[in-house]
Amino acid sequence: MDIIDLVRGVVRMDRPVLFQDRIVSKQEVNISPDDRGYVFGDGIYEVFRIYNGKLYETEAHMQRLLRSAQGVMIELPYAPDALLQRLQELLQRSNIQDGILYMQITRGVAPRAHLIPDGLKPVLYAYCSPLERPLESMQRGISAATVEDIRWHRCDLKTLNLLPNTLARHAAKQRGASEVIMHRDGRVTECSSSNFMIVRDGVLRTHPANQWILHGITRQVVLRLARELSIPVEEEPFTLSDLAQADEAFITGTTTEITPVVEIDGRKVGSGTPGEITLRLQQAFEQTIREL
Amino acid sequence: MDIIDLVRGVVRMDRPVLFQDRIVSKQEVNISPDDRGYVFGDGIYEVFRIYNGKLYETEAHMQRLLRSAQGVMIELPYAPDALLQRLQELLQRSNIQDGILYMQITRGVAPRAHLIPDGLKPVLYAYCSPLERPLESMQRGISAATVEDIRWHRCDLKTLNLLPNTLARHAAKQRGASEVIMHRDGRVTECSSSNFMIVRDGVLRTHPANQWILHGITRQVVLRLARELSIPVEEEPFTLSDLAQADEAFITGTTTEITPVVEIDGRKVGSGTPGEITLRLQQAFEQTIREL
Repeated sequence: MDIIDLVRGVVRMDRPVLFQDRIVSKQEVNISPDDRGYVFGDGIYEVFRIYNGKLYETEAHMQRLLRSAQGVMIELPYAPDALLQRLQELLQRSNIQDGILYMQITRGVAPRAHLIPDGLKPVLYAYCSPLERPLESMQRGISAATVEDIRWHRCDLKTLNLLPNTLARHAAKQRGASEVIMHRDGRVTECSSSNFMIVRDGVLRTHPANQWILHGITRQVVLRLARELSIPVEEEPFTLSDLAQADEAFITGTTTEITPVVEIDGRKVGSGTPGEITLRLQQAFEQTIREL
Repeated sequence: MDIIDLVRGVVRMDRPVLFQDRIVSKQEVNISPDDRGYVFGDGIYEVFRIYNGKLYETEAHMQRLLRSAQGVMIELPYAPDALLQRLQELLQRSNIQDGILYMQITRGVAPRAHLIPDGLKPVLYAYCSPLERPLESMQRGISAATVEDIRWHRCDLKTLNLLPNTLARHAAKQRGASEVIMHRDGRVTECSSSNFMIVRDGVLRTHPANQWILHGITRQVVLRLARELSIPVEEEPFTLSDLAQADEAFITGTTTEITPVVEIDGRKVGSGTPGEITLRLQQAFEQTIREL
């Protein structure tokens, strides 16, 4: 943990946070050890991108939040409209130009028991944090390592059960790579906290949005942009050997945007530099930020 | 949540808890919203059984804790011997005859990032709670429902990523059953928070202790007792159709001990009452408690 992280994260105890329906100073937040989020990871979350002081793809993130909530049967603590209003207030109070808005909702506080009790009051916690755009990685590309995807079978739900993702990310680091590319029995799914796409013979390929991957918002935007640019898209699972023959590869995510992957398991992807279709998509994505 | 739960759990804010290396009043515990346990479920846990004011199978639980810690690369906050001493102190201060000792250790507090930071200080939290032995269920048996096992592929690690377990438990309730029996592609694994065994033609069958089930302490004790009683044991995966033909079935767990399953998916197991081998194992188990 370097000093920047400390300043950004733990030490900034005076920053405004949203706790339940009130914006308070972070030091006023007291999480109960009986919070089911703490003992079971029993909760959901969202990460919104902030560009130029505004939330990006707000509606899509809210829709996904509702979908995750429904998927694990957590009721939002209050109506989505009121929630969004609070998030906007939080953003204004945080005075951040480029960053993220993180929000999580746990099922609530109760004596520990697997069985989900009736009548719990969900616990909502959200904050904004400054984050620069990853301009250098987007220009130069990153390296990745392939690992087996051992996560549960509802990867489409954005829950707090993220230990496998953090362990996968750690495995990448141990192998000298920046990210992992996960696969189930040789079928490529996604990365530890981003989706994954390849280009082969001019066709953009990515895993379909089913139970095996998170339905990324940036993924949606990129697929929409690809169609607008008349780039053929194939949303079908592809294999590790397809991956080995890819001309281009990149990850998509709320914080990583469109980041080229130029090396996988120590081998160059295509020429080892960001590919042409990747660059076109990056430019089109840039335009969506400018139009925000 | 009924009044008993309230009294036992949330409301008893004055009970002693172990927080890091100090025994404090529960109200002094303040969990950070930046605790990786809260945002990623990034932690491990153990539940020890307390009989007659003593910990049961202490060494086995400590061994499993160390194994889980190693499996997710969390370092214990202090040496196992010192930890056990603190747990014993906690038990004495709690003044509980029959109950459980719950302990969890998260990776620590850090600004949210998937990558595991270096140098984190783990967060340890433990408490004792009274719990009667489930005498009625053990005598009469319970019902269970079969569901697909959609958990991750390291079920042998006792981590805080328990959302799938709680959802499975909820599915049982919705189907009018007390527990779930999970299976992967028809192969029976275990229950939401206990292991599962059947008896067929006098042979005790249970899933082997590999990555697909938790290596239950009570499971170990029961297998040891079965061997002492010359009951043949087969630790091999069995299928849903084996299950349908079982003469007896039961779950094993730290709080559930040996609880017969007398009905599965609305159909009687054997005669619909606890079976003979189940009863023999229960008696032998009872003896281990008396000898504690």
